[in-house]
Amino acid sequence: MSTPVTADHVALAHRLADASGAIIRRYFRTHVAVDDKSDASPVTIADREAERAIRDLIAAAAPDHGIIGEEWGSERADAEWVWVLDPIDGTKSFITGKPSFGTLIALAHRGRSVLGIVDQPITGERWIGGVGHPASLNGTPVRVRACPDLRDAYLYATEPEMFKGSDQDAFERLTARVKMRRYGADCYAYALLASGFVDLVCECNLKVHDHAAVSAVIEAAGGVVTAWDGAALGLSTNVCVLAAGDRRAHAAAMKALAG
Amino acid sequence: MSTPVTADHVALAHRLADASGAIIRRYFRTHVAVDDKSDASPVTIADREAERAIRDLIAAAAPDHGIIGEEWGSERADAEWVWVLDPIDGTKSFITGKPSFGTLIALAHRGRSVLGIVDQPITGERWIGGVGHPASLNGTPVRVRACPDLRDAYLYATEPEMFKGSDQDAFERLTARVKMRRYGADCYAYALLASGFVDLVCECNLKVHDHAAVSAVIEAAGGVVTAWDGAALGLSTNVCVLAAGDRRAHAAAMKALAG
Repeated sequence: MSTPVTADHVALAHRLADASGAIIRRYFRTHVAVDDKSDASPVTIADREAERAIRDLIAAAAPDHGIIGEEWGSERADAEWVWVLDPIDGTKSFITGKPSFGTLIALAHRGRSVLGIVDQPITGERWIGGVGHPASLNGTPVRVRACPDLRDAYLYATEPEMFKGSDQDAFERLTARVKMRRYGADCYAYALLASGFVDLVCECNLKVHDHAAVSAVIEAAGGVVTAWDGAALGLSTNVCVLAAGDRRAHAAAMKALAG
Repeated sequence: MSTPVTADHVALAHRLADASGAIIRRYFRTHVAVDDKSDASPVTIADREAERAIRDLIAAAAPDHGIIGEEWGSERADAEWVWVLDPIDGTKSFITGKPSFGTLIALAHRGRSVLGIVDQPITGERWIGGVGHPASLNGTPVRVRACPDLRDAYLYATEPEMFKGSDQDAFERLTARVKMRRYGADCYAYALLASGFVDLVCECNLKVHDHAAVSAVIEAAGGVVTAWDGAALGLSTNVCVLAAGDRRAHAAAMKALAG
């Protein structure tokens, strides 16, 4: 059964990204106060206001939809349709003035992410894609590239600190076999994978709001995103994620991670 | 004696960045072929053409000036005035479609970098600064920020792989004491330091074309850039570099690096 993502869903998703982007642009490079959350990750008024604006728009347009948001928690998370929000993925980049952060907006249907937006409001780049909705960047179709051999793969991760213990060993095993390993691109790395310029993104300790939107975009661009063991991500949280543009690279990377 | 950076020098520097930017924009996200240089770092036709265009403009406008370029080597490196060029600093970012790379153009007078440009041709950001030429971003003045205490410092480095042996130990000693450590910003991290959003950049194995332009911009923005032991960089190469917006953070970081 195909998932009924409608033109209304897509239009609402764009409006949510428009609203968050306007707020984030206002605060970018303005020395906003930075608070430490309980998990020691930083948050600013821009994160909070952007998610607030998105939630208000959802409440007005689709009051029966659920919401899972990074900053303001969950409401009706068991609804048929649930929006999964990260107003600023890459707050560390945002607070240092580096436009590789993004606003992540996903729409999940019965526990599966079926529509995603990665919005970079400073460079003015918006990736969107989902079930029945081919991936695009600012309206121009994007597609993953072929990468049959790990030895040719360009891999990104946000930061080495996200890998601990045996996860770190697995990450080292994988990255020893790729062409290039780079850090620091936040959600932008997944968007570049959807556009065919990155082959693998491998990360740990991701929350549902970190992976739901990028998964939908990458799958709509022809790629694959799973947990490290190949399991479907669904709306799981605290998960290690492996994204690939080419299924052959994905299979080889899973094998390297498993050791 | 003040160094006679003239309006003509500044105008020529802008023309060089205009020319390289036009070439780089043409190749950005176009799947250019990537060659491995003898040091295993990647290079593309965009790197080579951009530096060629810059060199041709210098040869026409200032034939007595020397040139030290990453891709096409040195000419008259003992001249009174020497241009130091890195057409694409951050080629790994460039080839993966991530606009944190930059074109670095420095003018050195008698072995000292006195004018620098950091140009990001995709986001359209150009930092310039030098002796007697206050730092600016697209014409708007920029300034480093105060950071008296290492514990509040946001630190960037390009990649962990640049630190080996005792340098890695020193880097770990320093970064254990800062608020936040991030990778992957290339020369953009130095520009963000000049703009007052980053407090420290700490790197190793930098060539003269990696540090000459960013040093001039940061010093013109009120910051300080030296070798790890505090020595003036001059036109040294294969050097470990410490940049700071605040002299107090610089002194404390030097101490942490020394152990």
